[in-house]
Amino acid sequence: MKPSFEILSKAPGSSARAGLIHTAHGPIETPAFAPVASQGTVKGLTHEQVEELGAQLLLMNSYHLFLRPGIETIARLGGLHLFTSWSKPILTDSGGFQIYSLSPLAKVEPDGVRFASHLDGTRIFLRPEDVIDIQVSLGSDICMALDYFLPYPSPREKMKEAVNVTSRWARRSRDQFLGRAADLQLWGINQGGVDWDLRKKSIEDLLDIGFDGYALGGLGLGEPKSELLAILEQSAGLLPEDRPRYLMGMGYIADILEAVERGVDLFDCVLPTRNARNGTLFTSRGRVVIKNRKYALDPGPLDPDCRCFTCRRFSRAYLRHLYERREMSSAVLNTIHNLHYYLDIFRKIRQSIQLHLFADLKRKILLNQEEDTL
Amino acid sequence: MKPSFEILSKAPGSSARAGLIHTAHGPIETPAFAPVASQGTVKGLTHEQVEELGAQLLLMNSYHLFLRPGIETIARLGGLHLFTSWSKPILTDSGGFQIYSLSPLAKVEPDGVRFASHLDGTRIFLRPEDVIDIQVSLGSDICMALDYFLPYPSPREKMKEAVNVTSRWARRSRDQFLGRAADLQLWGINQGGVDWDLRKKSIEDLLDIGFDGYALGGLGLGEPKSELLAILEQSAGLLPEDRPRYLMGMGYIADILEAVERGVDLFDCVLPTRNARNGTLFTSRGRVVIKNRKYALDPGPLDPDCRCFTCRRFSRAYLRHLYERREMSSAVLNTIHNLHYYLDIFRKIRQSIQLHLFADLKRKILLNQEEDTL
Repeated sequence: MKPSFEILSKAPGSSARAGLIHTAHGPIETPAFAPVASQGTVKGLTHEQVEELGAQLLLMNSYHLFLRPGIETIARLGGLHLFTSWSKPILTDSGGFQIYSLSPLAKVEPDGVRFASHLDGTRIFLRPEDVIDIQVSLGSDICMALDYFLPYPSPREKMKEAVNVTSRWARRSRDQFLGRAADLQLWGINQGGVDWDLRKKSIEDLLDIGFDGYALGGLGLGEPKSELLAILEQSAGLLPEDRPRYLMGMGYIADILEAVERGVDLFDCVLPTRNARNGTLFTSRGRVVIKNRKYALDPGPLDPDCRCFTCRRFSRAYLRHLYERREMSSAVLNTIHNLHYYLDIFRKIRQSIQLHLFADLKRKILLNQEEDTL
Repeated sequence: MKPSFEILSKAPGSSARAGLIHTAHGPIETPAFAPVASQGTVKGLTHEQVEELGAQLLLMNSYHLFLRPGIETIARLGGLHLFTSWSKPILTDSGGFQIYSLSPLAKVEPDGVRFASHLDGTRIFLRPEDVIDIQVSLGSDICMALDYFLPYPSPREKMKEAVNVTSRWARRSRDQFLGRAADLQLWGINQGGVDWDLRKKSIEDLLDIGFDGYALGGLGLGEPKSELLAILEQSAGLLPEDRPRYLMGMGYIADILEAVERGVDLFDCVLPTRNARNGTLFTSRGRVVIKNRKYALDPGPLDPDCRCFTCRRFSRAYLRHLYERREMSSAVLNTIHNLHYYLDIFRKIRQSIQLHLFADLKRKILLNQEEDTL
């Protein structure tokens, strides 16, 4: 069997690495960013636009797709790739995040999680096995095991219990997945917050079970940045070199650079797309809040250093006008820019690791980020 | 001076003609359809997508742009083409339609129209001269004179008065426009409803003044179709051959074909774009209301005969899913299809006139339209 992950290059003096995740729908060059396409589409963009921007994979949402249009519908239509007509790799989350964050009635039981649909209140019970079945039916290239996470901060006893539940569910997920789909991967999610003893135990439990990739979950929930970075660093020492590492839901470029430096290979976040719709643009010189009055007569591009369609063609004045008029095209053009900004930085990150220039790139990007035009 | 309009071909046995409207931003092949871009963008699409679909010109909205971001802003940014970064021809309406339809306080006085902004209630008074100044400042390739129209039905005495006001304003518009902008055109709008005596007087008054093109206004407001068609036919006999004719706001393909047959050269309508957003798709086999339950598992394209991006790539099941989830991408993909459908029919109309096959084309399209999948 072809290994599902190979390392192409490692940055000297840091844990950053450039690699390739192999999937049945093509390779993913890492470090990679997965734009979020919860319902099977990046909000406002066509797949063609997303491809042209250089997205290598999309994160779709098991929880949302399970509720509507339903797994059976998607399976009958040939799985998620055929249904959405997205032919590159797809990663689906386990749904855990949505269950715990969208459903006020979520209750974790030993055997699974009980919750109410946030759409119509339907009571649902999902076991880790069900979550595997769902993702295998969808045909997701990268499936995620169901985990249990708590808000930050939570009492240590409860955190410990969450780690134990996550480990038990991880094993059941692995058992359910075994022999099901040779061309799909199953990744495990470790928990434990920023408590290294718990995190370490969680990682060790998962390593004992064995997964195609390892995700760090339950981070970016408000814990101090220094503690988060320490956990990333310690985790990198424990996780095997030959498996990809995924930091879930972390979106600020500054954080991403720190995480890459600590050996993380994969990221996803709604930040570039959601902020685009809210009129907050990320540029090489800092953030631009496009509704600001000072842009009303500004004939310049959002970002003079950007080569995206939006920056090549439109002025800040016009983009402000579209935003103020609540035109859908505002969300479209802003999303094109923000996604281009992210995916372009990831291209540069990969290149810089291969050229042994990652430290330079990181310094340069962080320097520019300080010139915030807000 | 180069004539602003030339006829390339005439269909035998009807008044249909294929021609070219010359503007400073390039030619418009007629019969032509102007997609509506009220605020300077077709809702949900990028200009690139609109261009690829084959749009030759856009209709933008003086009234909306006058209120926000304001004419001075656009003028300081170099006019409407530079502001919106749309480099093909632009037609602006006079704003009359919006004033009479959106502003409940609109009051026509001999010297102009008094109304309140539908956004914030600001009281505004616009004379026909102001409306010319606005459109010249915008740099619109085709400017429309301010007219006065009434709902259908209205008492004949009031209709007569509206025709007289429209004629007086048309002359003042023409005087204001004279010598202002050699590369812009001014078109007049005639009124008179479906009363031929009034319509005839209105057309004669406008011919006496002289315009670069003639629009038929105040139609499609609920009058019987037979009376509308009779007016189009009679108007075609009166309007000069060498000036383009514009039927404002009429959008159903069946009506457009009848109007082309009666010598109309230019159309605009929100129908394909607005209906797309509402989930109603026009196809070669009739209308598809995509939210219908029967499409939930339908793997086929919207329209098997269509070559647009949406039909080449996506299933009805996926489009229904996006619509049901209220995803912006639903509006985007639907708009791509509906605009493609319209612009493709206009390509076929022009070709058929040149090949003397317009009657065949019309019959074929109307036949297919009867197979409504609703």
